[in-house]
Amino acid sequence: MSSLYAGNIRISIFGQSHSRAIGVVIDGLPAGHSLDLDALQAFMARRSPAQNPLGTPRKETDAFEILSGVVNGRLCGAPLALEIRNRDAHSADYAPLEHRPRPGHADYTARLRYGGYEDKSGGGHFSGRLTAPLCAAGGIILQLLREQGVEIAGQALEIGGIRGRAFDPMAPEIHQIPAGPLPALEKGEAMAEAIQAARSQGDSLGGVIECAAVGFPAGIGDPMFDGLENRIARCVFAVPAVKGLEFGAGFDVARLRGSENNDPFCWENGRVSARSNHAGGILGGISTGLPILFRAAIKPTPSIALPQNTVDLQTGENVEIRIGGRHDPCIVPRAVPCLEAAAAIALYDAYLERNREA
Amino acid sequence: MSSLYAGNIRISIFGQSHSRAIGVVIDGLPAGHSLDLDALQAFMARRSPAQNPLGTPRKETDAFEILSGVVNGRLCGAPLALEIRNRDAHSADYAPLEHRPRPGHADYTARLRYGGYEDKSGGGHFSGRLTAPLCAAGGIILQLLREQGVEIAGQALEIGGIRGRAFDPMAPEIHQIPAGPLPALEKGEAMAEAIQAARSQGDSLGGVIECAAVGFPAGIGDPMFDGLENRIARCVFAVPAVKGLEFGAGFDVARLRGSENNDPFCWENGRVSARSNHAGGILGGISTGLPILFRAAIKPTPSIALPQNTVDLQTGENVEIRIGGRHDPCIVPRAVPCLEAAAAIALYDAYLERNREA
Amino acid sequence: MSSLYAGNIRISIFGQSHSRAIGVVIDGLPAGHSLDLDALQAFMARRSPAQNPLGTPRKETDAFEILSGVVNGRLCGAPLALEIRNRDAHSADYAPLEHRPRPGHADYTARLRYGGYEDKSGGGHFSGRLTAPLCAAGGIILQLLREQGVEIAGQALEIGGIRGRAFDPMAPEIHQIPAGPLPALEKGEAMAEAIQAARSQGDSLGGVIECAAVGFPAGIGDPMFDGLENRIARCVFAVPAVKGLEFGAGFDVARLRGSENNDPFCWENGRVSARSNHAGGILGGISTGLPILFRAAIKPTPSIALPQNTVDLQTGENVEIRIGGRHDPCIVPRAVPCLEAAAAIALYDAYLERNREA
Amino acid sequence: MSSLYAGNIRISIFGQSHSRAIGVVIDGLPAGHSLDLDALQAFMARRSPAQNPLGTPRKETDAFEILSGVVNGRLCGAPLALEIRNRDAHSADYAPLEHRPRPGHADYTARLRYGGYEDKSGGGHFSGRLTAPLCAAGGIILQLLREQGVEIAGQALEIGGIRGRAFDPMAPEIHQIPAGPLPALEKGEAMAEAIQAARSQGDSLGGVIECAAVGFPAGIGDPMFDGLENRIARCVFAVPAVKGLEFGAGFDVARLRGSENNDPFCWENGRVSARSNHAGGILGGISTGLPILFRAAIKPTPSIALPQNTVDLQTGENVEIRIGGRHDPCIVPRAVPCLEAAAAIALYDAYLERNREA
Repeated sequence: MSSLYAGNIRISIFGQSHSRAIGVVIDGLPAGHSLDLDALQAFMARRSPAQNPLGTPRKETDAFEILSGVVNGRLCGAPLALEIRNRDAHSADYAPLEHRPRPGHADYTARLRYGGYEDKSGGGHFSGRLTAPLCAAGGIILQLLREQGVEIAGQALEIGGIRGRAFDPMAPEIHQIPAGPLPALEKGEAMAEAIQAARSQGDSLGGVIECAAVGFPAGIGDPMFDGLENRIARCVFAVPAVKGLEFGAGFDVARLRGSENNDPFCWENGRVSARSNHAGGILGGISTGLPILFRAAIKPTPSIALPQNTVDLQTGENVEIRIGGRHDPCIVPRAVPCLEAAAAIALYDAYLERNREA
Repeated sequence: MSSLYAGNIRISIFGQSHSRAIGVVIDGLPAGHSLDLDALQAFMARRSPAQNPLGTPRKETDAFEILSGVVNGRLCGAPLALEIRNRDAHSADYAPLEHRPRPGHADYTARLRYGGYEDKSGGGHFSGRLTAPLCAAGGIILQLLREQGVEIAGQALEIGGIRGRAFDPMAPEIHQIPAGPLPALEKGEAMAEAIQAARSQGDSLGGVIECAAVGFPAGIGDPMFDGLENRIARCVFAVPAVKGLEFGAGFDVARLRGSENNDPFCWENGRVSARSNHAGGILGGISTGLPILFRAAIKPTPSIALPQNTVDLQTGENVEIRIGGRHDPCIVPRAVPCLEAAAAIALYDAYLERNREA
Repeated sequence: MSSLYAGNIRISIFGQSHSRAIGVVIDGLPAGHSLDLDALQAFMARRSPAQNPLGTPRKETDAFEILSGVVNGRLCGAPLALEIRNRDAHSADYAPLEHRPRPGHADYTARLRYGGYEDKSGGGHFSGRLTAPLCAAGGIILQLLREQGVEIAGQALEIGGIRGRAFDPMAPEIHQIPAGPLPALEKGEAMAEAIQAARSQGDSLGGVIECAAVGFPAGIGDPMFDGLENRIARCVFAVPAVKGLEFGAGFDVARLRGSENNDPFCWENGRVSARSNHAGGILGGISTGLPILFRAAIKPTPSIALPQNTVDLQTGENVEIRIGGRHDPCIVPRAVPCLEAAAAIALYDAYLERNREA
Repeated sequence: MSSLYAGNIRISIFGQSHSRAIGVVIDGLPAGHSLDLDALQAFMARRSPAQNPLGTPRKETDAFEILSGVVNGRLCGAPLALEIRNRDAHSADYAPLEHRPRPGHADYTARLRYGGYEDKSGGGHFSGRLTAPLCAAGGIILQLLREQGVEIAGQALEIGGIRGRAFDPMAPEIHQIPAGPLPALEKGEAMAEAIQAARSQGDSLGGVIECAAVGFPAGIGDPMFDGLENRIARCVFAVPAVKGLEFGAGFDVARLRGSENNDPFCWENGRVSARSNHAGGILGGISTGLPILFRAAIKPTPSIALPQNTVDLQTGENVEIRIGGRHDPCIVPRAVPCLEAAAAIALYDAYLERNREA
């Protein structure tokens, strides 16, 4: 397994859906910064199902305990370890499916990968629950970035075919995203209704999340394998259900000409800026100083109440299954803070890289 | 800089557009495999501008020399170093633009990153020319994968708004891609005409490349940060001009319901297969055994002959520039082998990870 | 901080002497192996002060809890997280020394490194207590190695100038090491008396530990930066107090001639062996198949009861301090399992490297 | 293979004794620094056999070519690639020994590791010749360190049982080391005579090298796996023939009491210093500000003219061989710059780590 991000910041995530605990060790945090635990709890609550009427009825509160790395409220330079105990786990829900892999889930591939020894309960290490420690790590790093004037915020841009309003690429309206269960600049109510409708039909919806980082300094990032796009991609695809990622104009570049897509540089208030931001704030893997913008495609939750076809790996038969348990009809709302966390990790890692050579 | 991929296979790329040489060191190749140098040269020729009527008139032949790592035609286990001497470099072409960053290029961001000491000639280390050593590394690894029964092939799916036919996700027609300058299952001629038209207008075109890996064993890949999607993303975004990446149904998942998007498992000839492949052959970061499919958005070449607005960093003025030199009006055709190479590196790296734990 | 070993096996250690917990995350363990928790507890008990009459009176039992990575007693492929709660911590003991760095400890250097924000209580992350999670990781890996027929054992070769009998380099007597508080082939009692004498004098003793790995297959290891010596060194110097490391004949090679030091190969029972083992089982960074042998120099415990000179960082004065608290007069006995653990991690990592390329 | 050091600085070494070229790629060098190529050539000449009357008659001049990473004499931020063409290679010398592994060399272990496909000529990738690119990398980094006021110098402390004078640990006499073929503070002539005597007897000698780094700032280094000792060890053991390594008092700590070994801190000229330096300038893996001191044991050159016993891997017989070719009777003098290079890489890597978090 490689649930480790070993860059300038090192993040080692552990746990299974129903193990004693899940958590994360972060190695490489700078000593001295104050940690705002309330803000961290609030950030993690946005991911937590407990407070989201659109989400699963599972009542995990994601209460965390910091085991090390903090003294008197400040980072002490030693690795920060944080754990979340698993308390509301219903392993029995999964027993009937032990040999009948759920379509769209990692049950089958994990079985091949780990020879049947993988933790099958609740999706094991592949559970969306493992995004809680990812959010914890990202939430801590967001605090470090905010001290540098960097803000990262995401919104639900599209759910179930209902598309809201995209950020202004030159000035993303990150402070206008409504609080509440469905963070969308526009059409949040319609999206919420579509989710409820899908739930009542025993089905699920996919969507698109848009994420913006504002205030990230120009000149950070690296060529080739460690460009900002590469780093962000490595972290964003760590969130299960992401199947696509685009920066700036993204796939639309396929229909643009060079004369349209190039962002002309210009002087603005004595600083270099550009007249457009098709590049999503990144050229050659390095930040331009304009907002960094990306969108991620989120697949519909694979766990649905409708009957599905699959195989029985013991009997060799094609079978129909129904998935019990408690599931989100759409994970887009809860995935928004996950992508913010992923972006924070990636950008901070690039930030440290630049630091190092200074 | 981080022009190093340091995974199970280690690939260190060096060089600038006009440095003495460009090249790559590959550390971690298994001893004993025969290297087919003709096949490698042929693979690299697909990227080379020399043989492509749609490309830049720059006549680099990308003739390479293997410096180490091969004895009597076989990998010897020591790091393989390969270099390509730069011979046809016209540095003078770039002098007038030294302080006037070209829109869409990394000139400005590299200047911030490297304090003005970066090699400005021909884009320096950020030049598309650096995809030659990437192709060399990928081309060697493709030979190793082929021995395992894995084939990787890409096609131009869309250029300048002209969209060809996508691969059949269950059985990508990788052997039907026409040889020649524009590898597209369909509408290759129309695409080629659009490129020529853009060239005559002094402009450039973007597009979409689709890539398929067939025969890759099921059960390879890892969760979280090292899923196949993460690994492929890390390598694909190393190819300059890629601004988006999607797997399987990709961004279309946003409009699919769970009941539509989930690929139902089924028994087929005594093996587990699935009735569809929206997952692009990857679940939970691990291969399903179905074809692995991804598409990448390629931006239009930023170097265009049309006048463009930019800034003069010395005088503080907004200025208009015209870019001389020799450039591709569309890099999609030449980028196809680059993405095949990127995919090969990523998949092979995951393959070695699996090996290790066996 | 870099309390992370990120090789083929990834080990992330966290905690401070008096933090809520200390522990380790191990990422990359193969699924399916049974874990013998009693054997692990017994291994860790050898390091624990609780059971050692020669050690500190601190009564940590090092009771661990496995948080993840194990299902039904078997490794499940997900990262294994293990924590040890800190219960018997007397932080107050350290308050008087907050600005008066203890000689021989990391107090002063950690303060420079972490700007005064480091956890000062009990040595923080630099405490010898952090070898408990190292032992946990090594103890688990030792079980994996044992399944492959590899045994690793260490002994106290020298304490306070009393030197016992070194292992036979061709056939280390690892099964003759006496159990009990002082594992030494010879003169263990005299060593124990010397320790007690030093304790009564308020002083401490250093020593030499010798470690042997038997049954490690030939042909494992790598050249240059990842030879077995390099790997073992990287792990052994992770144990605080190690100030020297030598393999095979070690520093004695300085006085040997090539004709003496070279180990002549010979056929033995149809296999290649050698007539001597000055190489300590390693040539070119790769195992020869003979026992792997190394010795590490362990400095005397820096915490002593005798008065010592140091500085007051606040007042700028030279001062005399007396260190209270509970300390080992000699850590050699307890460091033996730590070095076994370090060797296990290093050798297993090399083993996986070889596997990967197979 | 892992001839890659992938830390904050990334160093990828390639080549075999008789391959087209040997060389190194350094990724992560800061842009802007001037490179003094004459100084680099002079540094590498100290390792080169060409100029050393005590060395092998092989006349490699180690003339290098910088392929990339430097523009107008300054580092440009792109990876620096440097190659040395192999011209004076006599592969035929090695043919008779193809199946008869030389004692003390890596012939046998490499064969196991690489399945017989390894380059056998001249020791292949395991040749001491590969220390040339290591010296190149270290020589470049030494220039960067010198700009920060850091100087690193080594001396032959002992050869063939003749021991010179060790550095003063508080103030190493690095400027008193005589230039010339045998850099030793004392008894250099006697050492040189012993080498000549060994040569005339067809034998070889080992020794001890002592190395000091002066001016390295206090507060740099990391705990656990990335302490200065660990980093230095990882690089020093990359030099073939090193079989032992000790810091400060080293193995003598085994005979010291805590009250003797602890270095009492004291104020000196308004700064914190210490009254002794048994720690070798390192506490808790972090620099104290005092000189960093280590000694490495160098085994006698395994290639000797005297007949030796070994096996024939084809016939299964015990045989006697005589090694032809041209070899050093003692590599200590030429290894001195190699260890300086290794130390430079390790210290610089730690320096960058500290930088990053600032």
